[in-house]
Amino acid sequence: MTDVVDLLRAALGDAVSTEADALEAARADKSGQRSAGAPLAVITARTVEHVQAVLRSAHEHGIAVVPRGAGTGLTGAAMAGPGELVLSTAAMTRILEIDEADQVAVVEPGIRNADLNRALEPHGLRWAPDPASREISSVGGNIATNAGGLLCAKYGVTREAVLGLDVVLADGTLMRLGHRTVKGVTGLDLTALLIGSEGTLGIIVGATLKLTPIPTGAVATIGATFPTIEDAAAASAAITAARIRPAAMELIDPVALAAILRHLGLPDRAPGTAHLLVQTDGEAAESEARAALAIITALGGTARMTTDQEEGERMLAVRRAMHPAMESLGQVLIEDVAVPRSQLPAMFAAIRTIAERHGILIPTVAHAGDGNLHPNLVYEGDEVPDVIWRAAGELFEAALALGGTLTGEHGIGTLKRRWLVDELGDEQLALQRRIKQAFDPRGILNPEKVF
Amino acid sequence: MTDVVDLLRAALGDAVSTEADALEAARADKSGQRSAGAPLAVITARTVEHVQAVLRSAHEHGIAVVPRGAGTGLTGAAMAGPGELVLSTAAMTRILEIDEADQVAVVEPGIRNADLNRALEPHGLRWAPDPASREISSVGGNIATNAGGLLCAKYGVTREAVLGLDVVLADGTLMRLGHRTVKGVTGLDLTALLIGSEGTLGIIVGATLKLTPIPTGAVATIGATFPTIEDAAAASAAITAARIRPAAMELIDPVALAAILRHLGLPDRAPGTAHLLVQTDGEAAESEARAALAIITALGGTARMTTDQEEGERMLAVRRAMHPAMESLGQVLIEDVAVPRSQLPAMFAAIRTIAERHGILIPTVAHAGDGNLHPNLVYEGDEVPDVIWRAAGELFEAALALGGTLTGEHGIGTLKRRWLVDELGDEQLALQRRIKQAFDPRGILNPEKVF
Repeated sequence: MTDVVDLLRAALGDAVSTEADALEAARADKSGQRSAGAPLAVITARTVEHVQAVLRSAHEHGIAVVPRGAGTGLTGAAMAGPGELVLSTAAMTRILEIDEADQVAVVEPGIRNADLNRALEPHGLRWAPDPASREISSVGGNIATNAGGLLCAKYGVTREAVLGLDVVLADGTLMRLGHRTVKGVTGLDLTALLIGSEGTLGIIVGATLKLTPIPTGAVATIGATFPTIEDAAAASAAITAARIRPAAMELIDPVALAAILRHLGLPDRAPGTAHLLVQTDGEAAESEARAALAIITALGGTARMTTDQEEGERMLAVRRAMHPAMESLGQVLIEDVAVPRSQLPAMFAAIRTIAERHGILIPTVAHAGDGNLHPNLVYEGDEVPDVIWRAAGELFEAALALGGTLTGEHGIGTLKRRWLVDELGDEQLALQRRIKQAFDPRGILNPEKVF
Repeated sequence: MTDVVDLLRAALGDAVSTEADALEAARADKSGQRSAGAPLAVITARTVEHVQAVLRSAHEHGIAVVPRGAGTGLTGAAMAGPGELVLSTAAMTRILEIDEADQVAVVEPGIRNADLNRALEPHGLRWAPDPASREISSVGGNIATNAGGLLCAKYGVTREAVLGLDVVLADGTLMRLGHRTVKGVTGLDLTALLIGSEGTLGIIVGATLKLTPIPTGAVATIGATFPTIEDAAAASAAITAARIRPAAMELIDPVALAAILRHLGLPDRAPGTAHLLVQTDGEAAESEARAALAIITALGGTARMTTDQEEGERMLAVRRAMHPAMESLGQVLIEDVAVPRSQLPAMFAAIRTIAERHGILIPTVAHAGDGNLHPNLVYEGDEVPDVIWRAAGELFEAALALGGTLTGEHGIGTLKRRWLVDELGDEQLALQRRIKQAFDPRGILNPEKVF
């Protein structure tokens, strides 16, 4: 296998690295997990041809390839281990085209989501997917995981914002999927199939993105507290049921809120206090916010509403402080279940029961507009203890029992593989494996991930 | 093979028909085409178990099965011929659930699009896909073709309005794909893959649909005429570029307009006159319509705007009269190319050149908001003459050369099979066939369609 590394180095020069630091970095992502050992080499592709060359060699020699973007994934999908090659598209960061008339951008996969959106802003356009990681995550990674974010209840997930993909298959074949038009139904929708496939079907080397106008009009923000998380969740469900469509609607449970307030140096609230953030935008921003405010107050919330942008940002800062606040508690396993919106109160109750049963902390935030919860399972030490895995398993069971899903926006990766069959069933899992085989008959692309 | 029909009749009773009328009806759809001869039998499934029973038998005996809904397709995908079984889901029309809180409906595939939306209206909800055929086409057929319609530039296509599918595979296995939650990325997105697969991968027997609130606020409608279709297309492109998002924006070319005016008994316009219809909705309806009106006038259009609902409906009636007006011209082959929006003027010019070259009429309407054109190639007699096929081929070439696609919303079926490889290329077509095989190893589901 070292021979292949030598061959690649001869062909690709300094794009191939076997430096200890590079190998070590590729063992991990942002999941807190780490692979069993160092991979063979990290190839930082600068062109599509680099990607093709690596896959042709790997295919010929039967060597596993782990595709990698910015390495910000939360499920271990980009972690590489012994005997594997890492193929990074992080250096392919060019914007090839911004077409204002057709509202389309053509980009390389390595560009950061926020960098792309900063480049689009002068054109009055944006790419709607806005994962919380947007400053550090790449467009290619957003596509590989079908990333969601704060705005997607109103503005859609990644799948709805991608028109076409350039993909290199396991054998090095470059394939252009999809189209540049808004609509198109020519053959099977392989673009949609690739989105969220977590590097198991092909390597994304280019994307034709559907852009949308940056919303105009006011932005209104509401920060509200409730005596319990169930009350707060009931209010968010009532807002959805009232046909109000907030741009963002975030729930913060009491455990998370206490940690965030401590982290920000703000005074404590009464035990059990939960937080609800609502932001509306567009022409109806104010009237929608006033309607939401009335619901919040009627359901026992204490709320403040503003149309001042800076004050709105300060309110959102509470939610944005979640990740740093968690770091002060210890290590966290970040989970990502989703349930039908009406089941949010039941899911929060289930999380509390599970935390109490195991004597652990599970601070939880949720994108309430789409029923997606992020329970953070807190633990000490370098390894995820068994009790945390057991609690995670019970979380998944509870979500599935409520008509939900294992993962709303992070993906399966290595972390949730053991539960995949619980949701899909044996027959669908077998079908998914046959499809994987149609793309990658030798099984070299991101093996032991997802399936 | 008659044995299989006998076996099915023994098992399913009067769900199995070999009546001449039923067989004859299943030879055609709304494409104007007809299969080479009568199929073996038509099975009108009333339950999921019926569908499974038919597929188990067909799979065992290697008999082709043509899935069929309302039979309103425009590409021949539901046409059945000698040696084939027709499996119709048209009688499975129940709404199993409407959940207002989660904005979800669970339905059987045979329900008509418009019937579903009438049932949703009292709940203040709708299922957004609105093909022009909505009164006669089924939800299952809308899903099998990823149907578009007049509103989809603003409100999305079918793929964006389906959360989960119950599908019976070729061997009779029932599989539940997707989920009930708004978000979910567990494994490969087989729901998206099934949408638009035209009956080649499985038979849709149930769907979990994402509903959206019926827009509130005013509706504003503009009817405008321009001296040429290129002027009208330039105005529609300018409206899009100005970040206005009409609910519907329809172009009618001079040949189509003349036929429609004649059909409606309205006075002729000057030769070359083209029509542009714009409808805006929601809170910003009036301000958006006024901005569109200013653009239309500045670009040489003569326009009338109304916020009166009845007058707006009368304006839209011009567009709705397209299909009946075509019937007065002769037979038509309805095409469905899509191009990037900025290329609409170029595509209209190409259509005129092709029509003149062959001495034929190609009245054309377009969903301007998403660049989707429906050229209607007019001919006489029962068979599509060679000159029409040649002209259609040139249309496809022109669309592809402009960065477009063969089909925006009707699908490939049998009509566009010969051009599929021109868009996909040999390698992608081979990959699509391997995926088909992963679902249907014996190739019994809708053979000779699409691929």
